[in-house]
Amino acid sequence: MIDGTVARSAPRGRVWLVGAGPGDPDLLTLRAHRILTSARIVAYDELVGPEVLALIPAEAERIAVGRRRGTCPNAPSIHPAVLDRALAGLDVVRLKGGDPMIFGRGGEEAAELAVLRIPFEIVPGISAALGAASSAGIPLTHRDASSSVTFATAHLRGQEGAGATVESLARRVPPEGTVVLYMGIATLRETARRLIADGRSPGTPACVVSRATLPDERVVVAELATIADAVDDAALPTPALVIVGDVVARRVASPVDVVEVGSPQRRARGA
Amino acid sequence: MIDGTVARSAPRGRVWLVGAGPGDPDLLTLRAHRILTSARIVAYDELVGPEVLALIPAEAERIAVGRRRGTCPNAPSIHPAVLDRALAGLDVVRLKGGDPMIFGRGGEEAAELAVLRIPFEIVPGISAALGAASSAGIPLTHRDASSSVTFATAHLRGQEGAGATVESLARRVPPEGTVVLYMGIATLRETARRLIADGRSPGTPACVVSRATLPDERVVVAELATIADAVDDAALPTPALVIVGDVVARRVASPVDVVEVGSPQRRARGA
Repeated sequence: MIDGTVARSAPRGRVWLVGAGPGDPDLLTLRAHRILTSARIVAYDELVGPEVLALIPAEAERIAVGRRRGTCPNAPSIHPAVLDRALAGLDVVRLKGGDPMIFGRGGEEAAELAVLRIPFEIVPGISAALGAASSAGIPLTHRDASSSVTFATAHLRGQEGAGATVESLARRVPPEGTVVLYMGIATLRETARRLIADGRSPGTPACVVSRATLPDERVVVAELATIADAVDDAALPTPALVIVGDVVARRVASPVDVVEVGSPQRRARGA
Repeated sequence: MIDGTVARSAPRGRVWLVGAGPGDPDLLTLRAHRILTSARIVAYDELVGPEVLALIPAEAERIAVGRRRGTCPNAPSIHPAVLDRALAGLDVVRLKGGDPMIFGRGGEEAAELAVLRIPFEIVPGISAALGAASSAGIPLTHRDASSSVTFATAHLRGQEGAGATVESLARRVPPEGTVVLYMGIATLRETARRLIADGRSPGTPACVVSRATLPDERVVVAELATIADAVDDAALPTPALVIVGDVVARRVASPVDVVEVGSPQRRARGA
């Protein structure tokens, strides 16, 4: 633009950073569903389950990018295969478990795309905590029990040891209100001890929701002091989410034993 | 059941507590969309916008239940019109702005339904913070900036005065990490002062997202010390959401000026 030697940029493909939601494909947004079912290239990580991946068109290219946990501090967030395709002018859908902007590195990847002049769009998803709350009947806030909810993780950049991350929990989690720990199963025993040391009562209701919104969802409820033992006994499969706070004691269940998913037209069984 | 005089319960209708998302109807989940578009009775509050209400079938009964803010402490959460219909055996969709389990009273309403033996199902929605994050390009967590996000509100039961609620902010909001204040515009000046008094730097990046995900979305960015003035000057329409934290400085924007919503097949304009 300054002088004639600066060439016009080559056409880029567009990248969609799309939230895949908590697991149940019925919880995709309309926009995410439309983008996914018309995609030609889809890159996805380990947090996206087979139920959602089944919606990718058969003729589309699929790129499994792994979980990419424990990468070195200055490693780019976006996968090189996504960049390659976009720089070659191809549109790519980058599918992320939950929501791209909550523990999804959506901001990091978008910033890297912007540097390379690759246009992008971010499509939100039902984050795991929201899926678990509705599915397991545990409100995240409640006018009698909690007026805040904090989503936190034990993983911090450059702090791979559980000790360091748990140590800093008090600065990232308030003394009152609901706490949801993402990817918190591995460090649950230490986290629970730390929360108690920071002032939460050992009797605070706590639960773990495993595979939220999926047919094999399981919920283990205990007290903060005993939740790690309870989870060990239950041998829960991942992904699993930890919810701590008085809201856990406000858990609701529909009077009908089996809640059928379907149209409002369907007649509910009399209680 | 104990003796013959206890009649078998009359058949109840079912109630769907459905998250309507942040505003853009394209951000409804597939399940919410299906339930809404086949509903015969829909009760909705002031937080659900006309774009979503337009999806209700023309022949369906519509019940506007208002915002119900400032109700007395022991008032039921669920609207009597919803109960009347369900007890008469009719299915009702109770549509809520955002997500039912985050400042949506979904837990409270579900508990009241359970007491009356009315079966229910809770369908999550994209909470306002998630919609604003993707739409405005502000990550809620970031591996270099924040490993927790707290959603809080200034409204507490039995504490209608702003002073009391803001006073308790330090117990509900951690000293580090992203903070999102729902319904926080009215008390923004006091909230910002309180956060600074509790230890956040006056220079902490802050922003307000007004009417997130809708065509007239607006974003005002300032520092924590000046955000209230900036918002006063901008005269932002509600609903509006306050985001405080270093993530605000990580805001991303697509290299293409106008991001078009559509299918991945659509060719992106070259930068």
